[in-house]
Amino acid sequence: MSYWSNYPEIENHLNQVSSLIEERVQLDHPQIEAAIKKMTRAGGKYLRPAFFLLFSQFGQSKANNQDKLFKIAASLEILHMATLVHDDIIDDSPLRRGQTSIQTLFGKDVAVYTGDFLFTIFFELILEGMAGTDYMTINAKAMKKILIGELDQMKLYFNQEQSIDDYLKAISGKTAELFQLACQEGAFFGGADQNITDKAALIGFNIGMTFQILDDILDYTAEKEQFNKPVLEDLRNGVYSLPLLFAIKENPQAFKPYLDKKNHMTDQDVKKVSELVLHYQGVEAAKEMAKTYTQEALFAIEKLPKIKAQKQLLKLSKHLLKRHL
Amino acid sequence: MSYWSNYPEIENHLNQVSSLIEERVQLDHPQIEAAIKKMTRAGGKYLRPAFFLLFSQFGQSKANNQDKLFKIAASLEILHMATLVHDDIIDDSPLRRGQTSIQTLFGKDVAVYTGDFLFTIFFELILEGMAGTDYMTINAKAMKKILIGELDQMKLYFNQEQSIDDYLKAISGKTAELFQLACQEGAFFGGADQNITDKAALIGFNIGMTFQILDDILDYTAEKEQFNKPVLEDLRNGVYSLPLLFAIKENPQAFKPYLDKKNHMTDQDVKKVSELVLHYQGVEAAKEMAKTYTQEALFAIEKLPKIKAQKQLLKLSKHLLKRHL
Repeated sequence: MSYWSNYPEIENHLNQVSSLIEERVQLDHPQIEAAIKKMTRAGGKYLRPAFFLLFSQFGQSKANNQDKLFKIAASLEILHMATLVHDDIIDDSPLRRGQTSIQTLFGKDVAVYTGDFLFTIFFELILEGMAGTDYMTINAKAMKKILIGELDQMKLYFNQEQSIDDYLKAISGKTAELFQLACQEGAFFGGADQNITDKAALIGFNIGMTFQILDDILDYTAEKEQFNKPVLEDLRNGVYSLPLLFAIKENPQAFKPYLDKKNHMTDQDVKKVSELVLHYQGVEAAKEMAKTYTQEALFAIEKLPKIKAQKQLLKLSKHLLKRHL
Repeated sequence: MSYWSNYPEIENHLNQVSSLIEERVQLDHPQIEAAIKKMTRAGGKYLRPAFFLLFSQFGQSKANNQDKLFKIAASLEILHMATLVHDDIIDDSPLRRGQTSIQTLFGKDVAVYTGDFLFTIFFELILEGMAGTDYMTINAKAMKKILIGELDQMKLYFNQEQSIDDYLKAISGKTAELFQLACQEGAFFGGADQNITDKAALIGFNIGMTFQILDDILDYTAEKEQFNKPVLEDLRNGVYSLPLLFAIKENPQAFKPYLDKKNHMTDQDVKKVSELVLHYQGVEAAKEMAKTYTQEALFAIEKLPKIKAQKQLLKLSKHLLKRHL
């Protein structure tokens, strides 16, 4: 949990969430258990549980239900992991969090069931943490939106005519939904009032949108730096993200000859597209848009009660959202 | 629903369950929606919803919550479909219910998300049908057991030393669990008492065990008949089912040279193994075991209150479980 070394309390809580996850993924299938544990230890930042726990500080009920809060925090990370494992099947991704992905280690077959198994653990954890509340339904809807976001993205594969709105809709499901859920249910189960809970949802959404856009920008700027996933893998797979979409708008004809090759693009083609994206200011435009979401998030965080968690949220969000802007 | 033409009331109810499913799988992704609808219409027998609805007749509360009962009935079929879609990825199966499987039509990628999408619909339906009851947890546990059954089966791939108990444990998760759940929650949500609900679970378990064993027997007996899936596909994939396991016990050395080839068995090898299974009475022994489970189920059904549904259950189970014995 080196990411959290400046936040010792959060780090301590996240270690407990991590222990809970390791306890829950025990399974009489050494390969799969090992694969999942490897993934949990591979330096995921536990951002979703962290935001959940921070927002849980805005209410009064944290003392008497810490156990349930940890379960819900764990459910968020487990749901995230389940979608990652299945995404790697789709993307044919050799790496995840800088480590060999489950599907590469054990094959797509094991990866399908590993993801499914994680869904069942997610299901168990939310039942234990929130059965009887409206949040069971909110979780079911969130899970569905995340899935539909993935499908939206898949529908847009290799589509040079997709709009910025198409992209934003897809990432709002695929990424922002879970950040929104994390913040919203953190506030709610911490015992915050409706007003704070609504703000938490809004903040989570905006953080999630920025987070995904920054991730997509990194594809076009991190070429020579240390970076954990094969650069521009998304592009090769037909996922056209925000920097590219902004650049295409500037000059569709410049991109067409390369993109028309679809998954037959050579390394040279990919490099060329990447240069064109920079040339047509795609990265700049994407950064501008990320800033809008960041500002929205920070503005709302600033209006939260000025408790310690509020200051931490502000610091964390600034760090997370501004590092590459 | 031609399978149910002798049971007009059940057929009518199952048609309503089927409509509910079609309504719920609507999605702004024409391909996936079409794939799922094709699957729902491809002649699945809706056995799990049927057993659920039959058992719901043993209580008093059916009139005032028909809507919820249909939702739970649909949830059972949806969960079944989700596992089928993912199983076909694992098995590389070209066919499902006599039709091209989703993964063959649209690729493994779409199949992964289609299964996941069906899990979310399952989740929504049980929430609407049973939120606040202990059955949410029972469903979560059942889903996990089904998954673990699949993993158990995967762990046994190509294992010539696996025991009969290994096989029985795997199918008790992979198949019997969902039949058990269907019958048990049928009785419970129909308003039956604890005694009948317990019996329903027992009956469901035994029906499920028989059902799977018969399915596995068909692999070795249906070679020349009309049969919906490629014969002995399981064998080629390393799934050693009951007839083979009984036959191996009689003479392991006879099978070893063929099975040692694992997934490099030729058509001739497969044919030879199939002949050896018959020669060493593997099918006979498997039929004997299926009979034990059938008798257990029928014995318990006979002790249920003698309402119309009890007679239908008896007739249906005899038909389903004895056709090939």
